[in-house]
This record gives sequence, C-alpha cells and structure tokens, in this order.
Amino acid sequence: MRVLVPFAAETPKTRLESVLTPAEREVLSRAMLADVLCAIVGAGHEPRIVSTVPLDLEEFDLPGEVAASVSGTVDDRPLTDAVNARLPGSECRGRADDVPDAVAVVMADLALATPDALERLLTTSADIAIAPGRGGGTNALVVRHPDFRVDYHGASYLDHREIARNVGAGLETVDSFRLATDIDEPTDLVEVLVHGLETNRAPARLRAFGFELDDRDGRVDIVRDESVPTK
Amino acid sequence: MRVLVPFAAETPKTRLESVLTPAEREVLSRAMLADVLCAIVGAGHEPRIVSTVPLDLEEFDLPGEVAASVSGTVDDRPLTDAVNARLPGSECRGRADDVPDAVAVVMADLALATPDALERLLTTSADIAIAPGRGGGTNALVVRHPDFRVDYHGASYLDHREIARNVGAGLETVDSFRLATDIDEPTDLVEVLVHGLETNRAPARLRAFGFELDDRDGRVDIVRDESVPTK
Repeated sequence: MRVLVPFAAETPKTRLESVLTPAEREVLSRAMLADVLCAIVGAGHEPRIVSTVPLDLEEFDLPGEVAASVSGTVDDRPLTDAVNARLPGSECRGRADDVPDAVAVVMADLALATPDALERLLTTSADIAIAPGRGGGTNALVVRHPDFRVDYHGASYLDHREIARNVGAGLETVDSFRLATDIDEPTDLVEVLVHGLETNRAPARLRAFGFELDDRDGRVDIVRDESVPTK
Repeated sequence: MRVLVPFAAETPKTRLESVLTPAEREVLSRAMLADVLCAIVGAGHEPRIVSTVPLDLEEFDLPGEVAASVSGTVDDRPLTDAVNARLPGSECRGRADDVPDAVAVVMADLALATPDALERLLTTSADIAIAPGRGGGTNALVVRHPDFRVDYHGASYLDHREIARNVGAGLETVDSFRLATDIDEPTDLVEVLVHGLETNRAPARLRAFGFELDDRDGRVDIVRDESVPTK
C-alpha cells in the first residue's frame, strides 16, 4: 500500500495565527509532519510526501530508519486534485506517480497519530476506509476502489460516504480520537500537550515556545510563558 | 460490571445557551442520556443512572428492552463524590449502592456513543481503562482497582493517569472519537448531525429544532432555520 502525506508548505496553519508567529507555525507544521512520518513508518509503511513545493528532507533530520523509508514528490495543484491523480484507477499517470492498487492518504497535521491508531486504519479491508476528523472532515483514508475520488471541500466525510455509495464501494469508518484530531486551532494545541507522545516533536516544540497546560479555572486551556521570546 | 451514568438534571448544558433555550437544552440533554442508555444496553450491560434529582424513567419512553435494563438512583453530591462512593473498594456503602468489583462510568452527553465503541472500552482488562475526552477530560472509564478514585476537576485525564500510577494500577487508554466527543459547545452540535446514528434521539431533536449542517464557506457549521419556533 502507498501512503501519501499531502503537505502545503506555504503559510501553514493560518488559523493558529492568534497564538503563533509565521515562523513558529512553520516550525510546528514541520514538526507535526515529522511525527506523522514516524508514525507511518512505525506502522510498517513507507510514506510519500506530496508537497506543494520541493522539500529538503535532510532538513527534517529524521531518524535513520524513518529517513530511509520516506520519499517525496511535488504537486502544486489543490489538495483534491493532487490526491485524485494518485488514487487507484487514476488516468492522470502522466503527471502523477505510478499508482498501486491501494492508496492511503494521511493528513500531515495529525499530531496525535500513533502506529497503533494508523494500523487500525491501514489494516481494514473495505473498499474505502475513513478516519473522520472533527467538523465533518476526512483526516485519513484508504482507497482500494478504482472509481472512488476524493473531494476535500466542506463536509468531506459526508461527501466521501456519498461518493463511495455512488460508485458501489463498501465503506468502513475507523473510530479513532487520535486520527480525528487535526491541529488547526488554538484549542487543538491542548490535545498536543495532553496526548502527544513523549518522543514526538510537536509537543516538544510547543513547550520550547513556552506553552503549557493551564486548568486553574477548572477547564483546560493553554498558557504561554511570555518570558520565552517568539521566533 | 456495573455501568454508572451520572446525570446532572438541573440547568443542563449551559455552554449551549448561545444557541438553545433552557427548555431545548433540557430536551437535548435527556435525548443524549436516552441515546447513551441505549448504547450501553446494546453493548450488553445494564446502566444505572446516578441523577442529582429523582427522574421519572417512564417519561423517557425508552424502548422496552432498554427500559427493562435501566435503573436509577439519586445522589445530589458533586460528580466526583457521587462516583467515588460507588467505585470498587469504596467505604461509603452506607449511602451508596452495593459496590461490585468492576465499575464503569459513562458520561450522559456522549451523543455519538455506539455499542461497538463502548464494547472496546468495557472489554478491556486493565485495572483502569479511560476513554479521554477533548480538552483533557475523562468521558468514560472502567475501574477494577480498589484504591483508585476519580477527580473530575480540570485536566482529569492527566490526573487520573497520575492517580492510577500512585496506587499502582495499570492503565489503558481507549482511542475512540465517538467516546471522546462530549457535547458541550455549539461546535459540538456539528458532530451530532454528522455522526449521530439514524436511530438516535439527539440528532432528531436538533433537526426538529431547525438545525442543519452548513458548509457553504468550505468549513462545516450548524445553521438554524429561524422559521422553526423555539421552545
């Protein structure tokens, strides 16, 4: 199975702009990408980054066994088009890569992803398997049906269910909090600090930026140590 | 195993006050409770509601096989105290019920709970099993260790991990989006409409109130038909 990780390298994570500078958002988005790559390799697969611009993978300083399993390709088209060109049955092989029979697509901001959570998705046998995200999104999916195409706009989880029905593909939904948690907004940073693995980069970067958990008023939020300079 | 469902009947779901009237919040909270009870019975267990005030279970109009499995008790103490009095090893048996060797606690606002999701939690064998909620909460847990006590204030998931460590209890975390999604805030209503089972009451009530999904701007939100009168 091929596992694609789309990565929009320019101006990442704009919905975090109230709490992170542009440089910090870039650091965090790359830390999350590295964590996702490690989780995919930990689950026994070889991730392929589909980036909007060329990436220097050496800059990521990935662990050796991870770096050896990661490949990258560039596609500056919108997410939906770049993914569809790489799904089973795709006719756009001229521009895209060779297309295997099963393709998984894992978002690069799933900072809580673990090998176990990914294995639950990647070992399904359904034509289409989806790990939904909060807000009706599609955070990760596996496509084994040649007629299925993605549409990431709007409530993509519901759209993908309908697309699967329309092409006669069976669909399985994978119930995972870790895969449902994409990191888009400031409240999502709480999840990174609570559930991020100790070996992961994203929680380490957030702590280096001065963030910590704050539950003094009975609800959990993040608070930032203002003595730590921003980047 | 006993499965407790704490239910605070007075002024429920105040964080939904920007979108629902007090009467609607009461209707929704009772619909979610009924859905949770059905899911627990579907998972093969007999739920016991621990309510802050006496409930007339007949008012809930539960399906026959569910109604036959549900019992209720009243405890007007704060959540943490009411639960601790009912955990294995509790010494407060005078006021609480008889205490079995394994007790599960499932929050009444887990509107996405399904028998499958609950079974993944309830069939664990660890001393303590937790399904965390967003924001560091503890949405459902199983306690099989006589020295473990809950503390629902603040980042209870982290506190519960520490309490388990301190009493030498093994802990397992159950990775479920359905169990992680408690319905507290307006954005959570999106999840009820996207993922609520067709047979469930909570999505039906929300639709009767005039709510539907709106993804016209590319992100998913709820919108309310203003021609539907509020209650």
